[in-house]
Amino acid sequence: MVDHDWQLQTYLKERVRLVDSSLDRFLPGVDTLPTRLHTAMRYSVFAGGKRIRPILMLAACEAVGGEMKKVLPAACAIEMVHSYSLIHDDLPAMDDDDFRRGNPTNHKVYGEATAILAGDGLLTEAFILLSNKNIWGDIPAEQSLEVINIIAKGSGSCGMVGGQVVDMEAEKSPVDLTTLEYIHTHKTGALILAAIEVGALLGGASAKQRRALRNYGEAAGLAFQVPDDILDIVADPSQLGKDVGSDQQRGKATYPALLGLDGARQRANELRDVALSALDIFDDSARPLREIATYIVDRSC
Amino acid sequence: MVDHDWQLQTYLKERVRLVDSSLDRFLPGVDTLPTRLHTAMRYSVFAGGKRIRPILMLAACEAVGGEMKKVLPAACAIEMVHSYSLIHDDLPAMDDDDFRRGNPTNHKVYGEATAILAGDGLLTEAFILLSNKNIWGDIPAEQSLEVINIIAKGSGSCGMVGGQVVDMEAEKSPVDLTTLEYIHTHKTGALILAAIEVGALLGGASAKQRRALRNYGEAAGLAFQVPDDILDIVADPSQLGKDVGSDQQRGKATYPALLGLDGARQRANELRDVALSALDIFDDSARPLREIATYIVDRSC
Repeated sequence: MVDHDWQLQTYLKERVRLVDSSLDRFLPGVDTLPTRLHTAMRYSVFAGGKRIRPILMLAACEAVGGEMKKVLPAACAIEMVHSYSLIHDDLPAMDDDDFRRGNPTNHKVYGEATAILAGDGLLTEAFILLSNKNIWGDIPAEQSLEVINIIAKGSGSCGMVGGQVVDMEAEKSPVDLTTLEYIHTHKTGALILAAIEVGALLGGASAKQRRALRNYGEAAGLAFQVPDDILDIVADPSQLGKDVGSDQQRGKATYPALLGLDGARQRANELRDVALSALDIFDDSARPLREIATYIVDRSC
Repeated sequence: MVDHDWQLQTYLKERVRLVDSSLDRFLPGVDTLPTRLHTAMRYSVFAGGKRIRPILMLAACEAVGGEMKKVLPAACAIEMVHSYSLIHDDLPAMDDDDFRRGNPTNHKVYGEATAILAGDGLLTEAFILLSNKNIWGDIPAEQSLEVINIIAKGSGSCGMVGGQVVDMEAEKSPVDLTTLEYIHTHKTGALILAAIEVGALLGGASAKQRRALRNYGEAAGLAFQVPDDILDIVADPSQLGKDVGSDQQRGKATYPALLGLDGARQRANELRDVALSALDIFDDSARPLREIATYIVDRSC
């Protein structure tokens, strides 16, 4: 079924609303003790995130004809993990960022100690949610366990956290393209891939569909970082929500630094094409996944 | 069966060896990329911890006649959580401790950024382990999910992390006994209680046994902190592995500060007695739990 009126921006807005209202439901309220901690946790979760990871999870589920409501808790859990990682990345000992998406970072508002603990709390909350049997409905416990394993591995020392460590080390010495892609397949890509894999799993994907979505997720996850690097150079600050050129100043390895601006754009286009061709086995149900991959890359070109 | 030759110290040493060798097996090796991160994670896990939480989990399982090998992965997971919490607690933005158990703290050796990430990695590793279906043997997935839920809740914003936040806030203003006990039932008690509850669950405890062990865990968890506060005042530095009086200097709320040294000792004894009487329904199978509660309290009196 081809829907000619389908518009990506409307779709994304609807999904953001859905994810936001679910996050609000699943996170401890600001009245829950300790109130300051829960306020700090919510501050970063509701700081205007684009909800790309949860939306990709929902879209992967949709692509294989699954029910969206089965995926929502896991979609919220992955966004909690993403939010925690941003809080810790922004800390003075890490990227030392004062602003994110135009707002003061968590530690600028609540202080470093609370920011570290708000991050710890959000990461743990993701697993409290994922192991809550009441949210899983008729999904077998074996599958819930697999979801937890996919998300934990994507987030852990051989996934996102590992990528962040190598990224920090890369500030001290020049890196090559292999290291740069290691950083991004782990720091950003691993959690995006996990989102897609969970969506596929809970949506009831066949083995063939899971492989295809895995290929999509790997390419899209990497493609996600290239435009960020490009935008760090060419965007205006109001669009970016942080200082332009901050990666460069910090001596961070970026795609434009290694490949030049044109080379970086070419790499982004290649990755988009790989992501799109992975979806060839799907009909129009994969339209959101296709348009998101295109959107991710085109925003910087 | 009463074993007259039973000795606590021998028992503890054997259990430490068992837990240590399992941790070594379950943690990513130092050759796993990123090697620096995994080296930092292992540095703190193998820094001479007493393994009280895993040992209590094993002992609770034993008290209800369960098989110890069923509990070992969860016992290791809870120790990973404990290790992460110590790394983050020691950070400059938190307690700013240079030494722990006589060794330089993680951030003194690896730097703050890596220490934060080593903590994040360890917390996540606990859930990677707990959601690995290969480690659970014939334990039903529903029960594995419940174990994850108990450990995550004990560690999270309404458990250990929540206690740490209130502890940090308490440095700024005087606190009363209610707040002090809130801090310790959460910061230390919640994870100890989780350990006991998981041991009971996986050991196959009846509802009555679970309630009794829960009562034991609550009292023992709180009893654990009182002697720590007392030792901060009366111990010699070599015994403590950190500076004597460091809590006092930092203006930390402690039991001796609120109740006096004798009052604190009395509170410790009361808690031990509550823990012991909760075990009245058990025979000699609860001997380790009894002796551990006594040992915890007596080391400071």
